[in-house]
Amino acid sequence: MTVTSTSTASTATTSATTPAICDAPPLPVLGRDVTVPLVTGGEVSYAALDYAASAPALQRVWDDVAAYAPYYGSVHRGAGYLSQLSTELFEQSRATVADFLGCRPADQVIFTRSTTDSLNLLAAVLPAGTQIFVFETEHHAALLPWQRAKGARVTCLAAPRTPEQAVAALDVALHAAPKGPKLVCVTGASNVTGEVWPVRRLAAAAHRHGARIVLDAAQLAPHRKVDVAELDVDWVAFSGHKLYAPFGAGVLAGRPDWLRDAEPYLAGGGATRTVVRRADGQVEAEWQESPAARHEAGSPNVIGAYAVASACKALTEAGFDRLAEHERQLLDLLRDGLAGIPEVRVLSLFGDGADRVGVLSFVVQGWNSSHLAAALSAEHGIGVRDGLFCAHPLVRHLLGGEPEDPGACGSPENLSFNAVRVSFGVGTPHEHVRRFTGALAKLVREGAAWTYRTESGRCVPAPTA
Amino acid sequence: MTVTSTSTASTATTSATTPAICDAPPLPVLGRDVTVPLVTGGEVSYAALDYAASAPALQRVWDDVAAYAPYYGSVHRGAGYLSQLSTELFEQSRATVADFLGCRPADQVIFTRSTTDSLNLLAAVLPAGTQIFVFETEHHAALLPWQRAKGARVTCLAAPRTPEQAVAALDVALHAAPKGPKLVCVTGASNVTGEVWPVRRLAAAAHRHGARIVLDAAQLAPHRKVDVAELDVDWVAFSGHKLYAPFGAGVLAGRPDWLRDAEPYLAGGGATRTVVRRADGQVEAEWQESPAARHEAGSPNVIGAYAVASACKALTEAGFDRLAEHERQLLDLLRDGLAGIPEVRVLSLFGDGADRVGVLSFVVQGWNSSHLAAALSAEHGIGVRDGLFCAHPLVRHLLGGEPEDPGACGSPENLSFNAVRVSFGVGTPHEHVRRFTGALAKLVREGAAWTYRTESGRCVPAPTA
Repeated sequence: MTVTSTSTASTATTSATTPAICDAPPLPVLGRDVTVPLVTGGEVSYAALDYAASAPALQRVWDDVAAYAPYYGSVHRGAGYLSQLSTELFEQSRATVADFLGCRPADQVIFTRSTTDSLNLLAAVLPAGTQIFVFETEHHAALLPWQRAKGARVTCLAAPRTPEQAVAALDVALHAAPKGPKLVCVTGASNVTGEVWPVRRLAAAAHRHGARIVLDAAQLAPHRKVDVAELDVDWVAFSGHKLYAPFGAGVLAGRPDWLRDAEPYLAGGGATRTVVRRADGQVEAEWQESPAARHEAGSPNVIGAYAVASACKALTEAGFDRLAEHERQLLDLLRDGLAGIPEVRVLSLFGDGADRVGVLSFVVQGWNSSHLAAALSAEHGIGVRDGLFCAHPLVRHLLGGEPEDPGACGSPENLSFNAVRVSFGVGTPHEHVRRFTGALAKLVREGAAWTYRTESGRCVPAPTA
Repeated sequence: MTVTSTSTASTATTSATTPAICDAPPLPVLGRDVTVPLVTGGEVSYAALDYAASAPALQRVWDDVAAYAPYYGSVHRGAGYLSQLSTELFEQSRATVADFLGCRPADQVIFTRSTTDSLNLLAAVLPAGTQIFVFETEHHAALLPWQRAKGARVTCLAAPRTPEQAVAALDVALHAAPKGPKLVCVTGASNVTGEVWPVRRLAAAAHRHGARIVLDAAQLAPHRKVDVAELDVDWVAFSGHKLYAPFGAGVLAGRPDWLRDAEPYLAGGGATRTVVRRADGQVEAEWQESPAARHEAGSPNVIGAYAVASACKALTEAGFDRLAEHERQLLDLLRDGLAGIPEVRVLSLFGDGADRVGVLSFVVQGWNSSHLAAALSAEHGIGVRDGLFCAHPLVRHLLGGEPEDPGACGSPENLSFNAVRVSFGVGTPHEHVRRFTGALAKLVREGAAWTYRTESGRCVPAPTA
């Protein structure tokens, strides 16, 4: 399998300026013209419906990166024109991200590699003995970093059945907690159900009890306006690769104090003010005080940060109202289509009326989810995801049981092992969702047209008999 | 300051295929046609001579990334065609890097964000109580991560005067060390002097005493063939952004055992096999055993890894013999030019005859290094670096004193504060080096044509009087 086309990556297309057809997505993305072969013959345009894992790059992000790339230079102490330009673009990118997030004046933006990295960074700077409160419904990246914090005590709360219950459960847990530093970590929108969490109310509950709160906005920021000051959260984390800027950068933004008081996340250049070798042969470092310098040791990923900033600008300029309306239309199409397939069970914590972003997981009676995902890809050119979505406790809770060995992907046993997730965003045309619900209905009604087998733990089309 | 040109980033030029002019560099890079304004009027093509900090992207790397970008998709559990393609390209990239480094069959390649990140990762997986041996001549990224390892004891060896002395000093230190796990960290080529270290002999000394050795190849890998098996080092670390692939990825490669036995570097998705919430509300994770999965939590930087692999292929195909010959010509030009300026003192540990890559630092009698670097940029369009190069103990040792307050950049006091570094590589034409030595001679002979002032700790051209 190789990249065979020279692609349209570097060609600005006209789709952003020509009159919109009825289901034109609000912002053009790379890959919109990519076709893929079908196992049943022929080719079809690829329907990328795994935005919740990694979204395609915005055309605008690509164009900005392409325009900058020849001007790329070493940042910080480089004396040349391109070094100064790159340093300025890097720091401007930080300011753009702060604007995008509605940061307070003292808040700091630190470029990391991803949400996972951002939350691990925050875990590394917690005051000793911090008590952490987190729901079992979180993605592993928001569930697991806290265990390794110095003297930390993690309280993992059971999955709530309503947003109100979430707020009440947090309130009770914080009320019962002993004195000392506390941190609540909560998702803005679930990466499994897409459901939006009551962040403002959870933040209020946290602050009522003297706790701080970090928002995992990996799934929220690409879909809704995140305003740190208005939500009154202390920190927010998100990933560039889910925000249409897949160049290796993520963000942690928020309160400076814990960041300033802690040891640097990475030891190395950039984080140091002075380093001396003492007479006894030991090395002493004095670290930078500014949180960004302190925790961004090594040469920063300038292109990654610039790409994130470009995406922030593009989403802001398009307007989150418009983006949310597009997504609402896609969700309506999706739910109408799924409603016509009685074998489908949509996974939900908060029930049908819950507010959700463009992320939805489901299981189909009589189908192994991996088999279904493989057939959607091979027979219909649709890319979805199957599995437990790095949120094992939540998916197990929703499926109502322990996962078992997946077994042969074509076999109907172990139906409860995993789920299928479909997710979309600003580059998704209506046709992709229509094709998806049509294909799913056909597969459920008629069965797969091809046979599949398990290979390296994945379900793949079997060779022609 | 903004990016004003749409640039030639996405346009394959003909310079790789047209007959070579006498000083054509071996591989075309982005930015080769960029012009910058001079403070003295007019524009000039930019001479990027700060490769040791961050090198421009190879045109080939850019073209590969541009061809792949529309096919970018979520890796690992994504079921769609583009997810499978991206997963395969990501794993192929790992194999390409292993080939590039001459890894042994059991060696593991882990994608990090940079050399700094790679060495911090290795520090995080050291067995408890490891004794670390490092020379004070290292970059901070290789000097500082070890202090934070569990129960670690760091021995910082004094700067040696010859490669032989380095080997002997290490031998003595290891001989005197008590039993237990030991690690030696050594640079392949100094980021200050460019001098090549006797890695194979240091590795032999380390292994003679049961120690392991990690090679900081940040400055070596872009210039010389690094062969892990032949050098007999246990690990090697390098950065994409110094290897003509500035997309946020770096590499740690080598022995699997310490990596497999340690806690994951980051806690999060991808690194987990299973995660369960116990009845008592606590969370338990079982981690992946494969070092790459275990230490690459979160969505990997696929484009970054693919870019690194593309650079590895391009350098290998061009041939390190040819690249080294080009660099030797540039070094000869540079040294001939500098020899004609008696005020110049080149910084060196090992003396004139030492083998060096295309990195050289110097001071000029009567000149503040920041002033010199600013004038080279503003009056000649040449980008070099001034400072202590994130290697404070080494530069202080070479300058023979403690740094003082830099003072006004235009003033002649505090001459010993820092140095100027010039560095180049596969995209550097002879003209850049000739222009540099010519400009330096003119500045030293005639003084700067403009006046400069200090602004935010940097030396910048003063506004027109």
